[in-house]
Amino acid sequence: MTRNKIVTFGEIMLRMTRPDKQRITQGSEWLGLFGGSEANVAVSLAMLGDEVEYVTRLPRNKIGDACRNEIRKYNVGTDFIAYGGDRLGLYYYEESAALRGSSIVYDREDSSLTMMQKGMIDWKAAFADAKLFHWSGISCALSEGAASATREAIETAGEMELVVSCDINHRANLWKYGADAHDVLMPMVAQSDIVFGTAGEWQLITGLKAPDFKAISSDYVLEEGAYLEFFRHAQKILPKAKKMIIALRNTLSANHHLLSGVLYADDRLYTARVYDIDNVLDPMGVGDAFIAAYVHAFSKNGNDNKKCLDFALAASALKNTIPGDFNLVTEEEVEEII
Amino acid sequence: MTRNKIVTFGEIMLRMTRPDKQRITQGSEWLGLFGGSEANVAVSLAMLGDEVEYVTRLPRNKIGDACRNEIRKYNVGTDFIAYGGDRLGLYYYEESAALRGSSIVYDREDSSLTMMQKGMIDWKAAFADAKLFHWSGISCALSEGAASATREAIETAGEMELVVSCDINHRANLWKYGADAHDVLMPMVAQSDIVFGTAGEWQLITGLKAPDFKAISSDYVLEEGAYLEFFRHAQKILPKAKKMIIALRNTLSANHHLLSGVLYADDRLYTARVYDIDNVLDPMGVGDAFIAAYVHAFSKNGNDNKKCLDFALAASALKNTIPGDFNLVTEEEVEEII
Amino acid sequence: MTRNKIVTFGEIMLRMTRPDKQRITQGSEWLGLFGGSEANVAVSLAMLGDEVEYVTRLPRNKIGDACRNEIRKYNVGTDFIAYGGDRLGLYYYEESAALRGSSIVYDREDSSLTMMQKGMIDWKAAFADAKLFHWSGISCALSEGAASATREAIETAGEMELVVSCDINHRANLWKYGADAHDVLMPMVAQSDIVFGTAGEWQLITGLKAPDFKAISSDYVLEEGAYLEFFRHAQKILPKAKKMIIALRNTLSANHHLLSGVLYADDRLYTARVYDIDNVLDPMGVGDAFIAAYVHAFSKNGNDNKKCLDFALAASALKNTIPGDFNLVTEEEVEEII
Amino acid sequence: MTRNKIVTFGEIMLRMTRPDKQRITQGSEWLGLFGGSEANVAVSLAMLGDEVEYVTRLPRNKIGDACRNEIRKYNVGTDFIAYGGDRLGLYYYEESAALRGSSIVYDREDSSLTMMQKGMIDWKAAFADAKLFHWSGISCALSEGAASATREAIETAGEMELVVSCDINHRANLWKYGADAHDVLMPMVAQSDIVFGTAGEWQLITGLKAPDFKAISSDYVLEEGAYLEFFRHAQKILPKAKKMIIALRNTLSANHHLLSGVLYADDRLYTARVYDIDNVLDPMGVGDAFIAAYVHAFSKNGNDNKKCLDFALAASALKNTIPGDFNLVTEEEVEEII
Amino acid sequence: MTRNKIVTFGEIMLRMTRPDKQRITQGSEWLGLFGGSEANVAVSLAMLGDEVEYVTRLPRNKIGDACRNEIRKYNVGTDFIAYGGDRLGLYYYEESAALRGSSIVYDREDSSLTMMQKGMIDWKAAFADAKLFHWSGISCALSEGAASATREAIETAGEMELVVSCDINHRANLWKYGADAHDVLMPMVAQSDIVFGTAGEWQLITGLKAPDFKAISSDYVLEEGAYLEFFRHAQKILPKAKKMIIALRNTLSANHHLLSGVLYADDRLYTARVYDIDNVLDPMGVGDAFIAAYVHAFSKNGNDNKKCLDFALAASALKNTIPGDFNLVTEEEVEEII
Amino acid sequence: MTRNKIVTFGEIMLRMTRPDKQRITQGSEWLGLFGGSEANVAVSLAMLGDEVEYVTRLPRNKIGDACRNEIRKYNVGTDFIAYGGDRLGLYYYEESAALRGSSIVYDREDSSLTMMQKGMIDWKAAFADAKLFHWSGISCALSEGAASATREAIETAGEMELVVSCDINHRANLWKYGADAHDVLMPMVAQSDIVFGTAGEWQLITGLKAPDFKAISSDYVLEEGAYLEFFRHAQKILPKAKKMIIALRNTLSANHHLLSGVLYADDRLYTARVYDIDNVLDPMGVGDAFIAAYVHAFSKNGNDNKKCLDFALAASALKNTIPGDFNLVTEEEVEEII
Repeated sequence: MTRNKIVTFGEIMLRMTRPDKQRITQGSEWLGLFGGSEANVAVSLAMLGDEVEYVTRLPRNKIGDACRNEIRKYNVGTDFIAYGGDRLGLYYYEESAALRGSSIVYDREDSSLTMMQKGMIDWKAAFADAKLFHWSGISCALSEGAASATREAIETAGEMELVVSCDINHRANLWKYGADAHDVLMPMVAQSDIVFGTAGEWQLITGLKAPDFKAISSDYVLEEGAYLEFFRHAQKILPKAKKMIIALRNTLSANHHLLSGVLYADDRLYTARVYDIDNVLDPMGVGDAFIAAYVHAFSKNGNDNKKCLDFALAASALKNTIPGDFNLVTEEEVEEII
Repeated sequence: MTRNKIVTFGEIMLRMTRPDKQRITQGSEWLGLFGGSEANVAVSLAMLGDEVEYVTRLPRNKIGDACRNEIRKYNVGTDFIAYGGDRLGLYYYEESAALRGSSIVYDREDSSLTMMQKGMIDWKAAFADAKLFHWSGISCALSEGAASATREAIETAGEMELVVSCDINHRANLWKYGADAHDVLMPMVAQSDIVFGTAGEWQLITGLKAPDFKAISSDYVLEEGAYLEFFRHAQKILPKAKKMIIALRNTLSANHHLLSGVLYADDRLYTARVYDIDNVLDPMGVGDAFIAAYVHAFSKNGNDNKKCLDFALAASALKNTIPGDFNLVTEEEVEEII
Repeated sequence: MTRNKIVTFGEIMLRMTRPDKQRITQGSEWLGLFGGSEANVAVSLAMLGDEVEYVTRLPRNKIGDACRNEIRKYNVGTDFIAYGGDRLGLYYYEESAALRGSSIVYDREDSSLTMMQKGMIDWKAAFADAKLFHWSGISCALSEGAASATREAIETAGEMELVVSCDINHRANLWKYGADAHDVLMPMVAQSDIVFGTAGEWQLITGLKAPDFKAISSDYVLEEGAYLEFFRHAQKILPKAKKMIIALRNTLSANHHLLSGVLYADDRLYTARVYDIDNVLDPMGVGDAFIAAYVHAFSKNGNDNKKCLDFALAASALKNTIPGDFNLVTEEEVEEII
Repeated sequence: MTRNKIVTFGEIMLRMTRPDKQRITQGSEWLGLFGGSEANVAVSLAMLGDEVEYVTRLPRNKIGDACRNEIRKYNVGTDFIAYGGDRLGLYYYEESAALRGSSIVYDREDSSLTMMQKGMIDWKAAFADAKLFHWSGISCALSEGAASATREAIETAGEMELVVSCDINHRANLWKYGADAHDVLMPMVAQSDIVFGTAGEWQLITGLKAPDFKAISSDYVLEEGAYLEFFRHAQKILPKAKKMIIALRNTLSANHHLLSGVLYADDRLYTARVYDIDNVLDPMGVGDAFIAAYVHAFSKNGNDNKKCLDFALAASALKNTIPGDFNLVTEEEVEEII
Repeated sequence: MTRNKIVTFGEIMLRMTRPDKQRITQGSEWLGLFGGSEANVAVSLAMLGDEVEYVTRLPRNKIGDACRNEIRKYNVGTDFIAYGGDRLGLYYYEESAALRGSSIVYDREDSSLTMMQKGMIDWKAAFADAKLFHWSGISCALSEGAASATREAIETAGEMELVVSCDINHRANLWKYGADAHDVLMPMVAQSDIVFGTAGEWQLITGLKAPDFKAISSDYVLEEGAYLEFFRHAQKILPKAKKMIIALRNTLSANHHLLSGVLYADDRLYTARVYDIDNVLDPMGVGDAFIAAYVHAFSKNGNDNKKCLDFALAASALKNTIPGDFNLVTEEEVEEII
Repeated sequence: MTRNKIVTFGEIMLRMTRPDKQRITQGSEWLGLFGGSEANVAVSLAMLGDEVEYVTRLPRNKIGDACRNEIRKYNVGTDFIAYGGDRLGLYYYEESAALRGSSIVYDREDSSLTMMQKGMIDWKAAFADAKLFHWSGISCALSEGAASATREAIETAGEMELVVSCDINHRANLWKYGADAHDVLMPMVAQSDIVFGTAGEWQLITGLKAPDFKAISSDYVLEEGAYLEFFRHAQKILPKAKKMIIALRNTLSANHHLLSGVLYADDRLYTARVYDIDNVLDPMGVGDAFIAAYVHAFSKNGNDNKKCLDFALAASALKNTIPGDFNLVTEEEVEEII
């Protein structure tokens, strides 16, 4: 049996925004889309042509159904979703405008995924025809139960010899259940083959600070030496990691972002051009789009590191132009940008 | 000092509906209005010209702010609202259409009001210039804390000689914290001067069944003898109650309702005409509109029981024509219907 | 030269309604359509295939432009519109729902048409290739100037031997400039060849009351004898009138209307069936649709009175199903209903 | 291998409607949903819990993608869809209102399905794990190619011993390619095990007229004797048919419909109650909902003919309350109505 | 009694805009928000936490009610509003886009405020617990009556020792009733303690021209010497003024504005940074936001002139990002920008 | 008789876009506007005050009616439109956003205009009072029939001594019927008095390449010498052409365009400034706006070449700010930009 499937696991939520960049306190209409880091990765992968399975836990009600239908619409497998718990997490998201930053009112506590426990998912079955498993640190932030389910998945994936892909994805304000983020995440990151993170997230794991990304135009020159030094240090801490990646973003204003990325593999550093995006339409999910596109490219051209990085960056640049969390672009559209 | 204010207390939630009677699983737009039984009563009273204060507990975030602003818009006092807790309760409401009934996905657990405790509201201050306090059984269903806050309010109101108005408002599916609805509600209802309920709710309190309301047209004749017998029994159980009222509704189809009401006071029964409403636009809050209009009329013409009942019924009939939970009609508009 | 054109004259306004039957005090969105009795007649005639010219006075601004464009869209001539004055009249219209009646906030004072004077329109030119001129009593209600412009038009039409069609159209609340409605209208109605009115409007002109229309179903039988007696009296007062017509409507509820009509010509009475319309979508302009369809049928089949009346009634019944003031139906569609 | 899948085949189109029952010539907004008889059957089946595959031909463009995604959203298999051709068929649909009937501007010529040929679908593969195949006469009306593809499917299904379900679905105005509807359809209907049709459609196939359905209320009594006689005649013509069904609808007005149905099997007639539906929200797909629910019930309770008919009718009644073509209701919701 | 209230007085209007930057002549939908210079100041102050009373004159109809409700929603007192007159003023506002400037069709003549007279407001009562009164020159432009009501307010405020704040707010095209703007405004400005204006407005009052603000980037250096000279001259003309302020804006294109401000107090000049705002969302009310924030800061930190100016400028910069006229931002949000 | 009319001929289509820059595969709402190169020219001319007739072929259905109404709304004559054929062409247009380019799904085959033949339009009558005829190369790309109708029009216009204006308008992907674009277009361009084209289109006709327009800011200096050389060559090929014009656009990103233009007449070159447009709202129809404005200016000030070019360029710059295909701006608004 060929094992072609990519599996992602994590929480998905209902994201409520006001039309026309109104504040949360204005008007009475909401646009309710669904999104979550690992679901975003799954949908992006499916759009790029991969066979994908998304695993999560949803409540058994019409909101859970609507959420699952939305994922299925994009050809993502939903057969291993666990059902139960009381609610789908929710957040009210106020879009940014000029010098006013975006803001969020979270209402995600006690969600079905937060309340989950290990043993609820049949990982063996979910991974039967899979080649890669992607997880992120958010799941570990929500509750001891969600963290243990993640750990169980990573371990099973390891045993079944899947490539393990990790987005450190550290959100300090979500860690409320008493555990220490570093201590929980470190062993799981250490079991991952591909590791993505921002400079800050890498610092949490490695204790070392990567260079700041201060680009204000596409002319910006990355400090290659410093990155190389950083990654050599990181490799010592994470000897299993075969690809270590930092996605770089500098937010000049609500609608003006600069993006780039660096990748370290086999003791070499790979860099990419700097994208200057002046009319950002929707910045949600840009990091997830990067990861999905990298994983897609890696699956096709594993060791052409430069090509994989360039593809990931172009896809994430495109995401800025797509409303919603999902990067609804095809491989051809990404290639065109490159 | 003249004490003119009417105070109501209870939970308010965000009500999410789809446009154009779509199912919860269709489309991505939501209309988010606010509503809750006692808030509905408060806004209706303010529209009728009364001085009103609404007491509740709201989270300290923009959703809480938006909710408070909406209440304030209709000239309802918000000075005694307590702030705290994590979230505003929410429900997804699918409107009915022809033979398809309405349906609701509740997401109200752990709301700020559910998590409240007695002592959080300064009832003495809230009641300082008040003449009447209205509460409902929903608050007691949510949690021990919310029930104790309600009890505290009723007791303080009694001590300060306010008229106490009670809507039994029994929602069996909300009682999840282990208490028995009858046992919790009975002593509080017994301390109320005005008591509203459906036939089923009265049965919960009194153990006796009031007649069914089987009207299919406005010609329907109420069983006055049976109602009188019912209320005489109820009066023995609730000796303090000066006005006992049953709001009657028969739902022929999603858009075709028949409404009436009976009132018992000083050992006499008062009845009202039967309204036949063929194109119901929004049935939410019809019962609250009835209560608000009765309380308003009672405040003006306390002992003209027939007039008060007729006014209450006409106002509740009008509510069926107003989008949202609030009965946005003036006294003149109600009089016109009568 | 064949004279084929039909000319109508009167005020057109911006009509603002809320979406989804919200009250005027709810929400912030408005749907702004244009309408006015004689403009409605003009557009309906054009839809039925007639060559039509609409005469009015509009302000020289973008709102006036938008209004003219909307009329032109339906192939109504706009070459004799006078431009000037300060504003287009406006009204906020709250649609009815079940037992809640519709209501209007007028904001039409000092409109460009109200401020007009005779001499502003070149009636000779406007009537050059015309065969029929239609006016209504509303124009005479607005101001002495608008009344004098109407009088000038009727007189010119008479001199140029056009058929003059009159809709008595009495709106008591608009007569604010001190003139007496009967005294102003009577001489102009007396110069008209075709006269339309409700029972109340005919009473204003003739002093005599036509029978009430009390239909509650399509079985209703009109009191033919009483109508005949009424019209014989009216004919004495209006000897020039060749066709005298009463459009009949009984409004059972916001969405349930009964329609019929009677016509008197050459000392004979013609009646039509009773239409029972149970799901009225938009009742605005139903009377104007009746008039337009009658005028259209009269132009084609002048003396087949029964046929003309039936056509007029069917068209007005259809209008209840069209959003907005204009009866956007073709001759074929009307014939299908018959 | 258990063969559980149900396969349907036919054309799906983009259906454009105006919001708020505007005419096609009003406004500039469109709501674009997807629908088609056999796709509607497929989605309804999936909602009822069946494993379903929908086969069609779609253009390789974003409109084709959007259409496929919408089907997939409801858990309908799309693996055997053929891609090619130039366009997705389209129709502009004006919803009915009161006495104004609905109307359609078709723009479906040269659609991808119309331009298809036999051999484009791998029916053997599509039917590998299937138990039932459903087709309708519309596909045969579009072109010789589409008819031959349908014939090929029916024959393959027969060879592979699937139950064949047929909706005669005769639309006279679609037969433009020169073939005779009866001659084309007759042999294919004759190979079907379950046959659905209206009275008129049955007449096309059998030459005999079934009784008219003239219900104006739910009291209506069906002419059982006449139906039995009709079906005995039909059985002679269609000896293979094990279930023969007429879905009955009487349209009193745009929003007031009466529904019922009769089924003949094993020389017995089964009838159902008459549903009186007074506020029809969307009548599109009511017949398809009936078929889907019958097929679902038949798959579960094959020979309880009465039960299957009642379930089918209840489901089709519910469809009248769902916006769009798809009957988005669950088995539980249908059971509740019964 | 502590006098904490801030009172503002002026006209509020209904502002009608098209969605999506359409021209006034396109489409039929309008977004109707309320706004007016002094109402904007009032709402902004309430958002910043101040106790505020807004005084105006509204018609007694549902449009007047909707307007008052909207103000009340933001916790602005409405107890001293006078009711009467015929209409709420209205304007149709076409938003700018790239090189197309915004444009307005005014329809505000004969509004309730324009038709007001002195004596209609009980200023003594309105000012009883107030510390500051804010007015603007617009009220004086509308009519002799509105000007006299403003004069009456300023005089009463002076007698009751309120701080008087003045926005010169000169709109040349509004002055139609025959009075000379300078002659009417000069004595009222001279009685004010705080005076705001643009360079042009200051020139109207003082006869002297302040320097032009020609910034095209945030590097721009203000001509401090010239401003100081200007203000010293102005101080001679307005000896009572304790704070004199110029709000500076340079509009590079519809969406690209540069903002700054200068303040003169105690013979010293205070300047602020230049804000470069590249994606202006809604520029209406930016000047009012500046004034409100200054007044708020002045109330807290009266003599820290630099701090007050910086706060005012940051708040007005933020206003560019908020849809509508009101600056719906909190003190914390303004501080964050600084 | 004065011949004042301008006639344009070509195809108009329904253009479907998603709201809020969603992708074609997102959501279910469409905005359906009408547009087509020569219709855009016609509407723009009418807006500028010219007498205009638009000739096309439309289907006899409600979509054809809606399209004609929309054109008529803007005062464009529609008396010579031919009716027939099956359908109005359609295209789904995905608007660009930041670095994502716009994309189109065409569905225009077999449209009424594509299926037309010469002889269907009475060109003699259409040109009776006309002075100028404008056509474009798109019509010739659609089918042999449409090309022959265009040829017929050009020849008739020549015989009747109208000025012939030509937009080369080469869309390579539309030429599917087997003809060679150069061979078809060349003789028709050669009969035109005014010729518009992009550099690429001119190359198709002349075989010579005009200079590239590489402006990235408004400082860009055009290569006048190279243009002059180019045009001298072109003049030899097109000796009849009195005005030859290149509209120049450089698209830096979806919303950032640079525009200019060059004109050659009487062996002289005329250039215009470079417009830098940073917030393009809708770029559709910018070229048509240029042509319309040039033709308008030419009609008024034929030989003031510089003035005509400047006017054309300013109008096309403004078009970028108008939603839809039509340049809804007046002559005064264009003058203001200049």
